[in-house]
Amino acid sequence: MRLAELSRRSGVSTATIKYYLREGLLAPGRQINTTTAEYDEGHLRRLRLVRAMIQVGQIPVATVREVLGHVDDDSLGRTIRLGAALWTLPQLPEPDEDDEYVRAAHREVAALLNRLGWENAKQLTTISPSYRSLVVAVAAFRRLGYDWGAEQLAPYAELMHRTAALDLDSLETYPSDAERVEFALLGAILHEPALRALHRLAQEEESARRYGYE
Amino acid sequence: MRLAELSRRSGVSTATIKYYLREGLLAPGRQINTTTAEYDEGHLRRLRLVRAMIQVGQIPVATVREVLGHVDDDSLGRTIRLGAALWTLPQLPEPDEDDEYVRAAHREVAALLNRLGWENAKQLTTISPSYRSLVVAVAAFRRLGYDWGAEQLAPYAELMHRTAALDLDSLETYPSDAERVEFALLGAILHEPALRALHRLAQEEESARRYGYE
Repeated sequence: MRLAELSRRSGVSTATIKYYLREGLLAPGRQINTTTAEYDEGHLRRLRLVRAMIQVGQIPVATVREVLGHVDDDSLGRTIRLGAALWTLPQLPEPDEDDEYVRAAHREVAALLNRLGWENAKQLTTISPSYRSLVVAVAAFRRLGYDWGAEQLAPYAELMHRTAALDLDSLETYPSDAERVEFALLGAILHEPALRALHRLAQEEESARRYGYE
Repeated sequence: MRLAELSRRSGVSTATIKYYLREGLLAPGRQINTTTAEYDEGHLRRLRLVRAMIQVGQIPVATVREVLGHVDDDSLGRTIRLGAALWTLPQLPEPDEDDEYVRAAHREVAALLNRLGWENAKQLTTISPSYRSLVVAVAAFRRLGYDWGAEQLAPYAELMHRTAALDLDSLETYPSDAERVEFALLGAILHEPALRALHRLAQEEESARRYGYE
């Protein structure tokens, strides 16, 4: 298809598509003469992914480029490729290891993983940004004087584990590795805002059921 | 306590505290002479909250000021006061109501709320930013060609409802209204990154259990 059709089918303006091409977020089309290039379904799918990352995920262009670099790196296995892409996404600030609340949070999160029997997650504590983000959030709660630790986190972790199992079930319905990596990435970008919105909506529902609109 | 002690106990530098005072994020201390002011436990708690919103929540200063204005508005009932504070937090971009995917997403979310029997949430669809964020995320998935609707969302919504019930259970352990509003706000700011981190960690655990590190 030509640029105009790519724009129509994606809902992205031709000016924005040209900008993505210049920024290397979209591979060039097949040049059929000096002024015209031809694009395929792969371009369309990539364009929609880039659009979702930038518009809904509000991810900076440089980060999108880096994430896509990992997605396209065929030299890596699927789990590692996906991990590299996900771990490039924006995260919470790094924990300050000299802070007493951060040290206490490390102990509580370690106790949590033990309690849950998450043996794989236990091996990732030095490299996983998810683990470090959890430590930062727990430390911030404790610094505010709230008693937040393994015991309080465990029921939430069980619910999140069930949520993650649903995610992987959906992932398995996609036939190709390329689609799975793309869907998992979208999971992190679109799914998290959706879960957060569902969570807030559920809070509103439950609060109104318990207390009405006092 | 004096400024130096407030700084020591909160872990926030005196320069930053002065900045928060100038920006109106923290009420002035009780002036005991021309150069010295006295701060109390209320200042300490508010300072920690402001710090968490800015550092962990990465919320802009102007937004923090607006959120705190709602928290402190005694003229409102508890549920409304909390709602106003939460709804001031940054949200996804507004849905474009002329977009066909947005219209389809509205239908799917309406079907979801019916299916779940969330009667209160159904009444909030025109005013709740959570509802609109959910519509935006669902529309983005559908635009990418994924079949995401009431059926796919329902098991996630059930898990999020159980998560919200845990939230309100913890809320009820705090004695005063002021603490409950503050804790609920922290719930939105610190709890969501914690849940997201738990969710990603659970994905890593479950992925490694199912596929190893291929």
